[in-house]
Amino acid sequence: MPSGFVESPFLAATYPSIAITIQKGFIMYKINSNYTKLPGNYLFSTIAKKVSAYKEANPEVDLIRLGIGDVTQPLVPAVIDALHHSVDEMGCAETFHGYAPDLGYAFLRDRLVERVYQPLHAEVSSDEIFISDGAKSDSGNIQELFSVDNTIAVTDPVYPVYIDSNVMGGRCGSFDPSSGKWSDVIYMPCTRENGFVPAFPERTPDVIYLCNPNNPTGTTLNVNQLQDWVDYANRNGCIIIYDAAYEAYITEKDVPHSIYECTGARSCAIEIRSFSKNAGFTGVRLGYTLVPKDIVQDGVSLHDLWARRHGTKFNGAPYIVQRAGEAVYSDEGQRQVREQVAYYMRNAHTIKDSLLDMGYEVYGGVNAPYIWWKTPEDMTSWDFFDYLLTKAHVVGTPGAGFGPSGEGYFRLTAFGSYEDTVSALDRIRRM
Amino acid sequence: MPSGFVESPFLAATYPSIAITIQKGFIMYKINSNYTKLPGNYLFSTIAKKVSAYKEANPEVDLIRLGIGDVTQPLVPAVIDALHHSVDEMGCAETFHGYAPDLGYAFLRDRLVERVYQPLHAEVSSDEIFISDGAKSDSGNIQELFSVDNTIAVTDPVYPVYIDSNVMGGRCGSFDPSSGKWSDVIYMPCTRENGFVPAFPERTPDVIYLCNPNNPTGTTLNVNQLQDWVDYANRNGCIIIYDAAYEAYITEKDVPHSIYECTGARSCAIEIRSFSKNAGFTGVRLGYTLVPKDIVQDGVSLHDLWARRHGTKFNGAPYIVQRAGEAVYSDEGQRQVREQVAYYMRNAHTIKDSLLDMGYEVYGGVNAPYIWWKTPEDMTSWDFFDYLLTKAHVVGTPGAGFGPSGEGYFRLTAFGSYEDTVSALDRIRRM
Repeated sequence: MPSGFVESPFLAATYPSIAITIQKGFIMYKINSNYTKLPGNYLFSTIAKKVSAYKEANPEVDLIRLGIGDVTQPLVPAVIDALHHSVDEMGCAETFHGYAPDLGYAFLRDRLVERVYQPLHAEVSSDEIFISDGAKSDSGNIQELFSVDNTIAVTDPVYPVYIDSNVMGGRCGSFDPSSGKWSDVIYMPCTRENGFVPAFPERTPDVIYLCNPNNPTGTTLNVNQLQDWVDYANRNGCIIIYDAAYEAYITEKDVPHSIYECTGARSCAIEIRSFSKNAGFTGVRLGYTLVPKDIVQDGVSLHDLWARRHGTKFNGAPYIVQRAGEAVYSDEGQRQVREQVAYYMRNAHTIKDSLLDMGYEVYGGVNAPYIWWKTPEDMTSWDFFDYLLTKAHVVGTPGAGFGPSGEGYFRLTAFGSYEDTVSALDRIRRM
Repeated sequence: MPSGFVESPFLAATYPSIAITIQKGFIMYKINSNYTKLPGNYLFSTIAKKVSAYKEANPEVDLIRLGIGDVTQPLVPAVIDALHHSVDEMGCAETFHGYAPDLGYAFLRDRLVERVYQPLHAEVSSDEIFISDGAKSDSGNIQELFSVDNTIAVTDPVYPVYIDSNVMGGRCGSFDPSSGKWSDVIYMPCTRENGFVPAFPERTPDVIYLCNPNNPTGTTLNVNQLQDWVDYANRNGCIIIYDAAYEAYITEKDVPHSIYECTGARSCAIEIRSFSKNAGFTGVRLGYTLVPKDIVQDGVSLHDLWARRHGTKFNGAPYIVQRAGEAVYSDEGQRQVREQVAYYMRNAHTIKDSLLDMGYEVYGGVNAPYIWWKTPEDMTSWDFFDYLLTKAHVVGTPGAGFGPSGEGYFRLTAFGSYEDTVSALDRIRRM
């Protein structure tokens, strides 16, 4: 009997011949075979399993987790106040809010233009901003706008969502476990050898994903390097998906906060932004994507396509969460969230300086909450994961989990508490 | 110069020959052509434009809107309390919550099993529930799990998201404006002639969308009729996407609250649920989808595929919103939201009884917040829209906007205030 076929006693008793005929010519629905191409284990699930197996075998051990990029500090008071206030509004018929406008509330979009883009002299209008439930959703969904036969290029190592969402969309070909690469994806290695700056690929891609400051390496492209990419995209008819989730951590002057600081970006770049790391919204869920109206292909505006997707498959971020986002960009909110970012950056500096002091080779941590650690003695990144787990009881993320060029590296995050960060380093020093 | 090509003064000056070569062999990224197949105007945008044009021409007119299905009553006190409490938790390091578990918090999933499914004796486990930001997202995204060459069947009229999301996914063929139909979609007419009960289609579909109680007709399948569909799906290797967004409005005993009340549904049915209409969460955003582990096709579990989608393209509903959802299913919350549903149902009964009293032909409104009104004198539904707008200053939704078999019908919703509903009917009586 075909899988999924459920015997119907009623059917068998009443129409035995029909039941047999149907079974013979049985054609079932088919699943999206692109989904089954994905390797079974998501990086962070594999880590979670390894960690819990270790915890079970060693229940007395107190682990410090500097692995997954989740924040630990509470929401700032300005955000808490805005949430309470808007919750009260939702409890009252006169101030209740139902469905939000498709693009998001104007109070939030206008404020973003004023507080995020105008200070950068970036030419952006409020109706080019689409408020969403987070940068992860947007970076996973944006590929839908492009043809299935388009080729994507990613830096290597890379945030897994860019590739996985394109695998699901059928753009990546087949996976070769020996190389750790998808046959139809253009990989742009970012390693210490090229200063973590991707070179223009030999084959021209259609869609280029750039995350700057970078996850996982914590390194950056400066404004001239990013301008080269914008020029490359305009010259070659590419779209850049620019993920600026970590821009709040930038400390150096020549690192761009937005791709729209570059000339010509409005005709080739979509920018994705997050409230997760600049304001601790990982459990609140808010982000946005900016699709300039200048991006037009064959007479079709990508802004219109994204609007259509928003209108069809999404129903807005919660009113109270959009009010919370507005409060992040109040004067008081900005003062408070910047303090929080400074707290995490103190962790980043502590990790980086301590590891350097111990003689290790480390990157990142200056404009990003991520430290990219060259594994000592050419250990593989998974071996180093086990080594750090068992010798120092510290959990990090193996670089190989982010792509083949991540092999030989290891990611630590600055999102723990300061106390945990300091004791993790003490343990590493003693291991 | 190809569209989207931006002249680079630097390039032209430095490498004029290269610039020319690139222009000649210029290959640009391509957009997803399925998106461009969608007719330009979304139903509710068209209505909004017509209404605002009328308002502009007649600024003195006070319109009553019984069109779009948005709620108007505030969140109930139990929900407001839960929101305030969880907001306070987010402001404190000890009780702060970052990323939610992929499937949603167990406190909510467990409570849903206990309060929604156990009373129905529906066999469902808590790890088959995926918490999301709403039923619209889930009903738009679920098609991703299926092969592009699968055929969908929808009732006609239908909630537009089922079709539009499949158009974007490339499953619908081409649109014929004269029939109002997509070439590859199986339409199952639901009209007064068949008592709004769809007949099994001649050609076997792969994926069947059923919304019960139905949007837009407000009519229902009883448990025996739904059992027939479950048997049909199991016999023919189909998947049913069952949208139960309006189940809280059911008043008749033989109408199922969940498809899992039917025997065999666990091997063929995915159920989508909403908090929008049972608890007024249209602006709060919470829903869930139940994918039973028994649905396995070619050795692949649809539950695993949906989990993979959730893990890759979504990052959970906000903690505070999941706590609000839990409060909906507290004893106090249930008492309060049921009062709210009763408030809207009083509107539904008022609309239905008044229109019947005036001699009109109306359906729905008994187990659903929608009234499906046969247009008088065979007016087209858009003509009737204009007639009602100009003569009674009441805004509803033309049935044709939901599909060809919606022609000759008109939808009114019960989500206005009682006072507005009563005065809308007074105006209709006098028109």
